[in-house]
Amino acid sequence: MRIGIVGATGAVGREIMEILAERQIPLTELRLLASARSAGTKLPFRGQELEIQTARPEALADLDYVLLSAGSGPSLALAGPAQAAGAVVIDNSSAFRMEPGVPLVVPEVNGHLITRQQTLYPVGNCTAILLVMALTPIHRAFPIERVIVSTYQSASGAGAAAMEELQEQTQAFLNQEPVVPRIMPHPYAFNLFSHNTTIDETGWNGEESKVRAEARKIMEAPDLQLNVTCVRVPVLRAHTETVHITFRDQAPTEDQVRELCAAFPGVRVVDDRANNHFPMPVDSSHGDEVLVGRFRRDPDDVRGFNLMLSGDQLRKGAALNAVQILEAHAALPPSE
Amino acid sequence: MRIGIVGATGAVGREIMEILAERQIPLTELRLLASARSAGTKLPFRGQELEIQTARPEALADLDYVLLSAGSGPSLALAGPAQAAGAVVIDNSSAFRMEPGVPLVVPEVNGHLITRQQTLYPVGNCTAILLVMALTPIHRAFPIERVIVSTYQSASGAGAAAMEELQEQTQAFLNQEPVVPRIMPHPYAFNLFSHNTTIDETGWNGEESKVRAEARKIMEAPDLQLNVTCVRVPVLRAHTETVHITFRDQAPTEDQVRELCAAFPGVRVVDDRANNHFPMPVDSSHGDEVLVGRFRRDPDDVRGFNLMLSGDQLRKGAALNAVQILEAHAALPPSE
Repeated sequence: MRIGIVGATGAVGREIMEILAERQIPLTELRLLASARSAGTKLPFRGQELEIQTARPEALADLDYVLLSAGSGPSLALAGPAQAAGAVVIDNSSAFRMEPGVPLVVPEVNGHLITRQQTLYPVGNCTAILLVMALTPIHRAFPIERVIVSTYQSASGAGAAAMEELQEQTQAFLNQEPVVPRIMPHPYAFNLFSHNTTIDETGWNGEESKVRAEARKIMEAPDLQLNVTCVRVPVLRAHTETVHITFRDQAPTEDQVRELCAAFPGVRVVDDRANNHFPMPVDSSHGDEVLVGRFRRDPDDVRGFNLMLSGDQLRKGAALNAVQILEAHAALPPSE
Repeated sequence: MRIGIVGATGAVGREIMEILAERQIPLTELRLLASARSAGTKLPFRGQELEIQTARPEALADLDYVLLSAGSGPSLALAGPAQAAGAVVIDNSSAFRMEPGVPLVVPEVNGHLITRQQTLYPVGNCTAILLVMALTPIHRAFPIERVIVSTYQSASGAGAAAMEELQEQTQAFLNQEPVVPRIMPHPYAFNLFSHNTTIDETGWNGEESKVRAEARKIMEAPDLQLNVTCVRVPVLRAHTETVHITFRDQAPTEDQVRELCAAFPGVRVVDDRANNHFPMPVDSSHGDEVLVGRFRRDPDDVRGFNLMLSGDQLRKGAALNAVQILEAHAALPPSE
């Protein structure tokens, strides 16, 4: 397999390389591409040093898969040329996610949309992916009417520079030195703030609107009521979400939800009341599974139910989901 | 006025001393009391060094006000003797909050319950106090049926030792040294976790049950539907809460809610969409006001509405509310 990664120096690009190495995907070529600024520098992969090339349309020839992780601008410029050159494109930006006819695939949820005919696969918003991983097994057995979500989102969603900024600011704070925001709009050390995406005229921010639209698309539930509040917390690379569910009918029992989640691939139940151990970033970071737990009833509503989840933003929220799409596509029978 | 502070060395006790100094409350005596371990050490106050005495019933004579901030055990042991010795007791523990006939006072909300006859005033749970400060002005004009809250709670709620632990663990993490939890049950550096109070058989933790019961009591709204998920985040001293409201009737407009909150004493509206500036700990910490904003509708429900709030856990969530009760009680006409 010949694979190209555009945005190889970014947080998601680096994670894709780690996952490709871990999962022993058979490669005849791994081509690393990034902005002209990074061209010529080298990154290690399976004991070799790979030189980064400038990401231009002409650099995308003779590849089976192109994974785009450099933001919407480069994706809009390069997805078409890569497909025209014969590659299947897997895109970590938001550029194509809501395009009609383009599937938005989380393999565990709607992997049947991966076909030989389809050559463009956007990867959903990280918060939406983690949410649908928790909701889908439950929704299939007990239809959900309404979801109210609050997020606890990590720095990694804003890229490697934001992760560095969080650590640098925190060190400065501990040294009692002034903290000067560069990437994020507000101080980040020991602070949290409403998600740093543009607010529209309804008061919703861009992240919240994405989560709502994309979760509905992935779950094929266009009428799902989905109210989201997105907040950045000083955590490095895992997103956590608290979720209040209203079922169409009476809520299932905690044991029923526990069993449904435990049986779903890619989900791990962490729900230990005796030890007060529930999904949290220190456990979900660097892991492939979405942790789900804190299952409990809403005392005011027989249809109400609570849970929380935590998942690695760079893995299942981005790079892992991209590689899973690649693997599933590569495993399609040639005849299909 | 002769004031005693039990738990003077704790996070809330120290904050009470700061507020007493700031607000120029006329004092003829400030008596500092703490565990025998701290007895004999000195703390500065208004340019003097005050020696700490052991908190025992006999040490509570000849005081007008005794502020208890040493946890439920000392409060249960000392509140009765202090009242018997003639003092008005203001108690920051949870020992007496839900006792029938004992008022739970947030002065801006139900200050009319402060009377000469009443000599015991529990101070509510910090998360509940901040929540009712935001809900009350809205609820009085537009009755609220249901509230779904997720919290982002700081270390300070677990005391000074937890605040130190968060900073020590964070420094260790940045130094790539191992992180060993002492006070909190889980690693705290760049992590978050479900609130560290005991989980009951319904799956609710102690903090959540307190918020629900106390907010209903303070607001005199025993039927208010109130679902809470309490989470600890790596922030030092301010709690933040995301709040989804369902009104009994159609939700008010954002402007109506903005005006109601802005007019309420102790609340400040922070709701700047253009600059993506909403309530956050870096702004609420060390301040007296509860910051409220991110007002926006729920697109799925004409009765639905969202907001978020942030307030200093040690100030309005504890020490400031205690001192406000003291001030209001001291200002009562003698005849009442």
